[in-house]
Amino acid sequence: MPRRIVVVGGGAAGMSAASAARRTDPEADITVLESGPFPSYGVCGLPYYLSGVVESAESLVAYPASEFRDRRRIDLRLEAPVESIDLAGGVVVETGGDRHRYDALVVALGAAPIVPPIPGADDPRVVVVRRLEDAIELRSRLDGVSSAAIVGAGYVGLEMAESLHARGIDVTVVDRLPRVMTTVDPVVADLVEAEVRRHCRLLLDAALESIEPAGSGGVAAPGLRLTCGEQTLDVDLAVLALGVRPSTALVPSLQALPNGALLVDERMRTSDPRVFAAGDCIAVHHRVLDGPAYVPLGPAANKTGRTAGTVAAGGDARFGGVVGTAVVKVFDLTVAHTGLTLEEARGRGMPAEATDVTAKSRAKYYPGAEPILVRLVHEPGGRLLGAQMAGRDGVAQRIDVIATALQARMGVGDLLGLDLAYAPPYSPVYDPLIQAAQAVRVKERA
Amino acid sequence: MPRRIVVVGGGAAGMSAASAARRTDPEADITVLESGPFPSYGVCGLPYYLSGVVESAESLVAYPASEFRDRRRIDLRLEAPVESIDLAGGVVVETGGDRHRYDALVVALGAAPIVPPIPGADDPRVVVVRRLEDAIELRSRLDGVSSAAIVGAGYVGLEMAESLHARGIDVTVVDRLPRVMTTVDPVVADLVEAEVRRHCRLLLDAALESIEPAGSGGVAAPGLRLTCGEQTLDVDLAVLALGVRPSTALVPSLQALPNGALLVDERMRTSDPRVFAAGDCIAVHHRVLDGPAYVPLGPAANKTGRTAGTVAAGGDARFGGVVGTAVVKVFDLTVAHTGLTLEEARGRGMPAEATDVTAKSRAKYYPGAEPILVRLVHEPGGRLLGAQMAGRDGVAQRIDVIATALQARMGVGDLLGLDLAYAPPYSPVYDPLIQAAQAVRVKERA
Repeated sequence: MPRRIVVVGGGAAGMSAASAARRTDPEADITVLESGPFPSYGVCGLPYYLSGVVESAESLVAYPASEFRDRRRIDLRLEAPVESIDLAGGVVVETGGDRHRYDALVVALGAAPIVPPIPGADDPRVVVVRRLEDAIELRSRLDGVSSAAIVGAGYVGLEMAESLHARGIDVTVVDRLPRVMTTVDPVVADLVEAEVRRHCRLLLDAALESIEPAGSGGVAAPGLRLTCGEQTLDVDLAVLALGVRPSTALVPSLQALPNGALLVDERMRTSDPRVFAAGDCIAVHHRVLDGPAYVPLGPAANKTGRTAGTVAAGGDARFGGVVGTAVVKVFDLTVAHTGLTLEEARGRGMPAEATDVTAKSRAKYYPGAEPILVRLVHEPGGRLLGAQMAGRDGVAQRIDVIATALQARMGVGDLLGLDLAYAPPYSPVYDPLIQAAQAVRVKERA
Repeated sequence: MPRRIVVVGGGAAGMSAASAARRTDPEADITVLESGPFPSYGVCGLPYYLSGVVESAESLVAYPASEFRDRRRIDLRLEAPVESIDLAGGVVVETGGDRHRYDALVVALGAAPIVPPIPGADDPRVVVVRRLEDAIELRSRLDGVSSAAIVGAGYVGLEMAESLHARGIDVTVVDRLPRVMTTVDPVVADLVEAEVRRHCRLLLDAALESIEPAGSGGVAAPGLRLTCGEQTLDVDLAVLALGVRPSTALVPSLQALPNGALLVDERMRTSDPRVFAAGDCIAVHHRVLDGPAYVPLGPAANKTGRTAGTVAAGGDARFGGVVGTAVVKVFDLTVAHTGLTLEEARGRGMPAEATDVTAKSRAKYYPGAEPILVRLVHEPGGRLLGAQMAGRDGVAQRIDVIATALQARMGVGDLLGLDLAYAPPYSPVYDPLIQAAQAVRVKERA
C-alpha cells in the first residue's frame, strides 16, 4: 500500500512539503487541500502587484496547478477548505464532504490577519491583504480610491502604504503605538518614520476605535470615518495591517505557543507522531534565543515545508532554525535586521548593549554613496546578539553577513577580522559592518 | 626617551600604521617617509578619477597632510624617498641625506607595477597607473588620446579599460593568455570576457613583444605601434596593467616569498625583531590555504598597517588573515570571488569540485531581477573552499556571506541553513547562495 500523505494548506509551505514528499517517495499518494483558488504564490509580492510594479497576478504564482498535478503527481485540490481534522482517527474532512485518511499529515495552514473586534471592521471597504485573491479584488477597485488609511505601521503596513501611494492614493498610516516598526529599535525606527512622513501622513499614538460610514453624518461623498483616539480620519478605504496569527484552530490538541503557533522539532514533527507542520502556522527554533519563536516569513516557510514533506514521506531532513533575519523596503529606504534588538535582548534579561555607526555604503568619493545606519547589539564580553541597518544603498545583503556570523556564533571581535569585498563602487575600504565592530572595540576600551 | 618609530611609505598601510602608533603611544616620535607628494589615498579610486566619475583628485585623499602632522603629531615627510635601510644599525637614510634612527621600523613600501623588459616600454606614451600623480598626469593629457591599448586583462586592466572607454577613447585590451581575469575560473571569466567585448576590442593569446613609435614607418600621425605576436596595434597610448610586485628591494635580508613579499606573523613582525611590515609589500596569512599568500588589496593594507603600528608602538594587535575576497566592476558587470578557485584548489592537489547555478538577484517577478552566476568550490565531503559570482545586480555583498562562512569554517551544508534576508526587491525566497548550496546537495545525492 502506498503511503498516504495529506497536506492541509497549499501555500509556499504546503506545496514545498508536497513536492519534497514526492521527491522522497515516488509511490506515495499525496493530496493537498487548499482553501483558495491558487497554489503557492509569493505572498510577499502582493504589495508590488497592488502598486503595479508587478503587472500580472499570474507572475506571483510560482508554478501552475498543472505542474503539481501532472508533473509531480500531487492531487492538488483548490477551493477545498477543510472542515475538521480527526487526529485520533487520522482523517481530514473537507468542507462539503470528502474525507482523506492519512498516514502522515502536514499542517501548513498558514496565518490569518488579525482583525480587531471594533465596530465597522466588517465594512466592505475595510480590507486585509493576505491572499492573492484579496489583492486581485482590491486592485480591481483602486481606481475609485483617492484616500486610504493603513492601520498598523509594522512592515506589512508600511509596504502597503508605499504600494497605495504609488497608485496616487493619499495615504495615512495609523498606529496605536508611539512609533513605527517595533521589529527594530527606536533609533532605526526613527529613520523609517522620517521616510514614511516624506510620502504619507502618519498618526501615531492613535488606537483605532471604530469605523463608520462617513456619509452617515450628512457628508455627501460615501466614505469611511475612522476614529483613532481623539482624531478622526475620513478615507475611501481602510487596510488593516495589524499582524497575523497562526491558523491552527483545526488542531487545538497539538502543542503550541500561546498564540497558537505549533511547536515542532527540527524534523517538523508536532506533538502527534503522525503530524508534521510547516510555514506560518509554526514556531521555529530561534538560534539566538535558543528556543521557539514565531517569525512567520517566506524563506522559513519554504524550508520548513520542504523538511516536513521529506520527513513525512519517510526521508530525513532537518531545519536548524532561524536567526531572525528580515529586510523590508519602505519607499526609498531599506531596513534590515537579524538576531535580537536591544529591546528584545534586554526584555529577556540579557546584559545587552547597542553600538551605532553611520557609514557610507560605497567609497565616500564614489557616486551613489549613501549613509547606512548600522546598529550592533552585543553583550559586554563581545557576544553578538543582532544587528539592524537602514539606508538607501547596500543594506539588504549586508545584513546577511551578520546573519551568517550569528549562525556561526561569531563574536564582535570576529567581525573585525572579516575579509569583506572592497571596490569603490560597492564599499568603503572599511566596510560599514567593520566600522561598527571597530566602534564596539573603541567603546570597550574607553 | 620617547620611542622612535619610523614608517617607510605613506600609503594606506603606512599612514594606518603611523596613526595606530600614535593612538597606542601618545609620546612616541613618529616619522613617515613617503616618496610621493600625497599621503594615503584611495589607489582603487584611480580608475574612477581617470574616467571622470570622480571629479577631483583631492577627494581620493583620505586626509590632508595637516591632519597627520598637526592633529596626530606625525612627522610626515612627503617627496622623501628612502635611499637605504640599515637594519643592523637601526637607521633609515633618506635620499639626499637625512638619517632616521629607529627603535621600531614599519616597512610599508607597497608594490610597483611590473614593466616588461621589451623595446619601447620607456616611451612616454607607455604608462602605468599606480600612483595618484600618475593618474593626474595621465588625465591631463587624455583629451589628445583617441585610442588606447590596455596591456593586461586582469582586474586593474579591465578597470582601466572601463575608465578610458568612459572618456570616449577607443580601447583595445591585450593579454598574452587565452582569457581574461585569471583570479576567477574560466566559466566566470567567460562572462567577463563577453562584457568587455560589448565595449572594447579584446586581443587574447597576444603577448606584447615590442612597442615602437608608429610614425617611424612613414605613417603621418604620431602614435605607438604594439606588436603582439602576429598582430600589430596602432594606438595613441598604452597602459601597462601587468600586475605588481612588492617594493622590498631596500630590505633584501628580511624573509620573504620568492616574489619579494615580506613574511610576517599575525602581529606583523618580520624576521628582524625591530621591523614590522604592512600593506602591499607583505604576504598575508590566507585562512583557506593556511599559509602565506600575496594578495595585495586595500582592506588588508589598512588592517595590517593598523596592526603593525599598534604593535610597533608597544601595543597588542593581531591580524588574522584573509580568505581572498575581492570584487571588481567591469563595465555593468560585478565580478566577485573569495577563497580558492577550482583551478587554484586543484593546483594545490585538493580534491576540489565546483558547482554552478544561475539564479535571479531578486524575486523573479520584481523589476531589476538579473541573473547571477554563482560558483561554489568545495570538497566532496562538503568543505567549502571558495565562491565566485558574476552579475549585474546584488553581487558585491553576497560574496561577503561566503567570505564570512569561510572564516567561520562553515561547510556547504551550513550554507543551506543560512537565514538570509528576503524581500522581493532584494532576493528570491531561496537566495542564489542557498540555491547554489542546494545544487551541491543534489549533486552529492546523485
